[in-house]
Amino acid sequence: MAKPLVGIVMGSDSDLKIMKEAAKILAELGAESEVIISSAHRVPEQTAQYARTAESRGLEVIIAGAGMAAHLPGVIAAMTPLPVIGVPIQSGALSGVDALYAIVQMPPGIPVATVAVNGAKNAGILAAQILSVKYPQIRDNIKEYKARMEKEVQAKAARLAELGIDGYLENSK
Amino acid sequence: MAKPLVGIVMGSDSDLKIMKEAAKILAELGAESEVIISSAHRVPEQTAQYARTAESRGLEVIIAGAGMAAHLPGVIAAMTPLPVIGVPIQSGALSGVDALYAIVQMPPGIPVATVAVNGAKNAGILAAQILSVKYPQIRDNIKEYKARMEKEVQAKAARLAELGIDGYLENSK
Amino acid sequence: MAKPLVGIVMGSDSDLKIMKEAAKILAELGAESEVIISSAHRVPEQTAQYARTAESRGLEVIIAGAGMAAHLPGVIAAMTPLPVIGVPIQSGALSGVDALYAIVQMPPGIPVATVAVNGAKNAGILAAQILSVKYPQIRDNIKEYKARMEKEVQAKAARLAELGIDGYLENSK
Amino acid sequence: MAKPLVGIVMGSDSDLKIMKEAAKILAELGAESEVIISSAHRVPEQTAQYARTAESRGLEVIIAGAGMAAHLPGVIAAMTPLPVIGVPIQSGALSGVDALYAIVQMPPGIPVATVAVNGAKNAGILAAQILSVKYPQIRDNIKEYKARMEKEVQAKAARLAELGIDGYLENSK
Amino acid sequence: MAKPLVGIVMGSDSDLKIMKEAAKILAELGAESEVIISSAHRVPEQTAQYARTAESRGLEVIIAGAGMAAHLPGVIAAMTPLPVIGVPIQSGALSGVDALYAIVQMPPGIPVATVAVNGAKNAGILAAQILSVKYPQIRDNIKEYKARMEKEVQAKAARLAELGIDGYLENSK
Amino acid sequence: MAKPLVGIVMGSDSDLKIMKEAAKILAELGAESEVIISSAHRVPEQTAQYARTAESRGLEVIIAGAGMAAHLPGVIAAMTPLPVIGVPIQSGALSGVDALYAIVQMPPGIPVATVAVNGAKNAGILAAQILSVKYPQIRDNIKEYKARMEKEVQAKAARLAELGIDGYLENSK
Amino acid sequence: MAKPLVGIVMGSDSDLKIMKEAAKILAELGAESEVIISSAHRVPEQTAQYARTAESRGLEVIIAGAGMAAHLPGVIAAMTPLPVIGVPIQSGALSGVDALYAIVQMPPGIPVATVAVNGAKNAGILAAQILSVKYPQIRDNIKEYKARMEKEVQAKAARLAELGIDGYLENSK
Amino acid sequence: MAKPLVGIVMGSDSDLKIMKEAAKILAELGAESEVIISSAHRVPEQTAQYARTAESRGLEVIIAGAGMAAHLPGVIAAMTPLPVIGVPIQSGALSGVDALYAIVQMPPGIPVATVAVNGAKNAGILAAQILSVKYPQIRDNIKEYKARMEKEVQAKAARLAELGIDGYLENSK
Repeated sequence: MAKPLVGIVMGSDSDLKIMKEAAKILAELGAESEVIISSAHRVPEQTAQYARTAESRGLEVIIAGAGMAAHLPGVIAAMTPLPVIGVPIQSGALSGVDALYAIVQMPPGIPVATVAVNGAKNAGILAAQILSVKYPQIRDNIKEYKARMEKEVQAKAARLAELGIDGYLENSK
Repeated sequence: MAKPLVGIVMGSDSDLKIMKEAAKILAELGAESEVIISSAHRVPEQTAQYARTAESRGLEVIIAGAGMAAHLPGVIAAMTPLPVIGVPIQSGALSGVDALYAIVQMPPGIPVATVAVNGAKNAGILAAQILSVKYPQIRDNIKEYKARMEKEVQAKAARLAELGIDGYLENSK
Repeated sequence: MAKPLVGIVMGSDSDLKIMKEAAKILAELGAESEVIISSAHRVPEQTAQYARTAESRGLEVIIAGAGMAAHLPGVIAAMTPLPVIGVPIQSGALSGVDALYAIVQMPPGIPVATVAVNGAKNAGILAAQILSVKYPQIRDNIKEYKARMEKEVQAKAARLAELGIDGYLENSK
Repeated sequence: MAKPLVGIVMGSDSDLKIMKEAAKILAELGAESEVIISSAHRVPEQTAQYARTAESRGLEVIIAGAGMAAHLPGVIAAMTPLPVIGVPIQSGALSGVDALYAIVQMPPGIPVATVAVNGAKNAGILAAQILSVKYPQIRDNIKEYKARMEKEVQAKAARLAELGIDGYLENSK
Repeated sequence: MAKPLVGIVMGSDSDLKIMKEAAKILAELGAESEVIISSAHRVPEQTAQYARTAESRGLEVIIAGAGMAAHLPGVIAAMTPLPVIGVPIQSGALSGVDALYAIVQMPPGIPVATVAVNGAKNAGILAAQILSVKYPQIRDNIKEYKARMEKEVQAKAARLAELGIDGYLENSK
Repeated sequence: MAKPLVGIVMGSDSDLKIMKEAAKILAELGAESEVIISSAHRVPEQTAQYARTAESRGLEVIIAGAGMAAHLPGVIAAMTPLPVIGVPIQSGALSGVDALYAIVQMPPGIPVATVAVNGAKNAGILAAQILSVKYPQIRDNIKEYKARMEKEVQAKAARLAELGIDGYLENSK
Repeated sequence: MAKPLVGIVMGSDSDLKIMKEAAKILAELGAESEVIISSAHRVPEQTAQYARTAESRGLEVIIAGAGMAAHLPGVIAAMTPLPVIGVPIQSGALSGVDALYAIVQMPPGIPVATVAVNGAKNAGILAAQILSVKYPQIRDNIKEYKARMEKEVQAKAARLAELGIDGYLENSK
Repeated sequence: MAKPLVGIVMGSDSDLKIMKEAAKILAELGAESEVIISSAHRVPEQTAQYARTAESRGLEVIIAGAGMAAHLPGVIAAMTPLPVIGVPIQSGALSGVDALYAIVQMPPGIPVATVAVNGAKNAGILAAQILSVKYPQIRDNIKEYKARMEKEVQAKAARLAELGIDGYLENSK
């Protein structure tokens, strides 16, 4: 599976430290991705080109992250039939509520699958879940991931039962 | 394609008049769906049962709509590896902002693909886009839908150019 | 001044009853305008085309109105060097706060001159003020408009002084 | 009273530094508690099991704390007849407003007794007040606690009267 | 159980049409209540008197509902060791968000168990859950209530399965 | 006391139906007032003139009401040493939150005494309270008003005790 | 003027570093004040006592500051005919919006003159403006204060004109 | 072009570190500007004088920045026919939402072209776009600026493609 199935696009390189979580979890779940900087406002033609050719280049899902008046996910969704996941990035005075509203409140006809503010990791998992409709191996990986997550919580619960509150907090430092 | 691929779940029958838009557009896009009432709070066991068996019963995507402290989409997402789409429903004093936050702000590990408040139609289109990763026919249907939508806007634009503002508004009554 | 100097674009014909105020006040202030329906999401190519050719076709200011995740003004601003005025339209569950944030919070490099939610009339006046930098006649018209507005308030003040509260309210019915 | 009467559950061990205040004040008020990590999303079965068996294991009140799309309190409330207290935890970009709405806005039928964002101490006091309906000793402890709190404020008031503003602030460093 | 166990207090008689739901569900769950109008701001002495004597008069839980800068629940909680439930009432321009914040954000030491805006029914159920810590009969009634609620949802689910969306909506008119 | 002591200013005659409550309660409390329409934006000179001459004309308190980006109270406060009371008026898409923030958040040096959104009656009472620092008769009137208000609540409480919930609501129709 | 005319009350000694600004500016404007810690929730009787005796002890204005569910100003206003100024204090997760709503949204009959979040200095100036209705010396002091403030801004403006942006910022370090 | 075409006004010298971005980008785009401190509240006469004489002194656009209850842009707009751009400054507890609402929600008749919170750079670009309606050289400069911005994004995109996520982040430190 060398060719990327997921395109991860962000409006600014300042979003990279958040958005890299999407690439990381996708790799973990066995789905190749590519990471692109392409602003809806600063390079609109390039963004349109990316969106319009995404399907023919073999991408199956697009993840787009942006902050403030975050148009990138919606602009891409307008130009591709692929499912588009939007990640509102926290930046500026309004703490990401602006980006959340600008991404999730898409008008009828052009949905964007929105995740939490700064929720790039969940965007990656969601992309894998979408791919898993087609790729059984990714489905299996997701199930293992969920089982692993479950075990981690159980391990923490057991550790808390063993150490008590103060001991647990002391050991977490 | 007689077996439903999309499960549309809602917390209350008062959500039906919104959520039916999802079923309607899915039918239009060639994807069979089933519509279920199953509250995360009032029938938690039934909801868990529905979520846990969704994959084995052949569902490939779940759409869940709920209002206020809208836990239904997240609760279902916790119990299935399938992609889950959440529709915040506007109800009560906070106009759906409560439902939006309660659905979109999922913690790392369990994403919910959130659409606009009352955005059931977009939830249906998004579900179809997800299915189209696997089913080429649905992809074609989505492309046709987008082309049709484009033509409708163009027709309106032409009508406005022809009739002028007052004529257009007069004719829209 | 037969050729339009101001392009008034809106994302949906449901915005027309708000946006027509911009055209009306522009006519009153002596600036020709054209009114267009062109959604950033439903007809992205047409919108891009409109924005890219606006300057060469002789437009000098663009007014764009949209609701919800209102990308239209920003998308147009990305593709033209002309000043772009954004009108957030109140629609859906979030009462226009979504549109306001999606329009005003533009990232550095691509400003949109945002007015109040549903503030199409002010968008028209602002467009005229911008044109008045170049056209002295429009400047004069704005001054007259402000003087007229002042007189109307003074007339109301005088009427209130004459009739008293109850008389005034009775006469306003 | 060796057996715990109050179950304190939290969705993540990162909530422990807030939630431990509930355990601490409960101990001070003479009510035994147990502290558990059990996410509504990551270990839904374990959480359901905990909630369903709470009554039979002798718990009389449950306190549940969670952040973001905080479903834990509501999910537990759905599966037990016991009173459930919810603590919205401040985390992520929305500063706990998301958790507050996701906890307090429960639909008719399944209440969650919500306290302030990060209000774990008050959750503990509220649990003690609920227990005090049955246990006179806890009622007495609450009265003493309120009296002590009153004296502390009075002592501060006296100290301010004695030292003046600058002296007081100097001594508080 | 002729003597009231729950005091239902409201700041204004305009809250009565909301707050009566608390009395109604309490009666249904087998817990006697009394309903009182007593504003924290307009009759502060009477309110204080009511709160201070509540315990000695045999009340075991207090429900207080108020709108806008809703101080009533907190003011009562300051003067009684009993558990106090707060109901934010939707009124005025801010739609109950003001009342919600003014009730739920109580400072450390004086909790108010807050329910949803206009959530008087849930306040009643919560009061019954608190009483059920002491009164096994009320616990049984709550269990029956939850079972009944579950059956109602199941009946609706079955009806939807039988009638389909359009049939269901037609029959609900 | 024939000369007005309180100036009641509003930005638009559409505010009159709200602002008249201030004049009414002031008359009831024995304080003469004058009512003026004078927009900070449409007749800035007249507004400045009004504010600058207020003290010398014998006014002792000013009440100013405005909606949306409500500058009127602050603009007046900048030009008079008199205490200025601001009334945010609910209008437009943001329901008065815009007016509230635009009035209450005055920077250091120029306070505006802000009341609730649409709180013109309270603005009148506050103006009377301010005047009562100087005029003992108005102080007495305020005390009587508070006593009357107290009695009205008590009468309602008694009526509810007598009629019960249903009877009370029936009689209130 | 040795006897205090203004009572400055705060709910917690943590508010002192904000609230001292009120005392400081009042001293500067020639109005004696007293500073008191008295929580509406922790020492309700003492707070009631303070409010009820304020007038007879010679106080003419009360300033009350509190954070979160800030009831102190309203509770005091309920028990005195004096004008009460409320200062919302920024604390906790909601940044003072909770305190602002809990103070400004007082119901009809009991106004609180609300200033900006953390606006203790303005509360002091407002108290002085209220006193100046009666005390000409304080009025003169306010006028001098406003003139001084005006000169300070003019001095800064002149310095910026002289030094330019970079020079000014360099000198401000 | 030695005479300034753009007046940049701010309410306080604490806004200078934000507002200087407007002057800087205007210089880069070839438009002379002047920078002024002039508070709407502290020096109302000077501000009015500045606004009223702006046109006759040769200014063609005004940029005004202010925080909290930000009246400066609206107050200036009321007294000049020139286009006025408003910059909400983030300061105080409400993070600039107060300033945004106080600037953008201008009533009909007096528009303010509002940019993002702290968006002084965009205010400068917008002023240049407005001037470019008249000055072809500035239009050319804007086009070059947009082209440069486009190239910078492309360079970053290329660098990310070359270095990968980790390499890029490492090099950005």
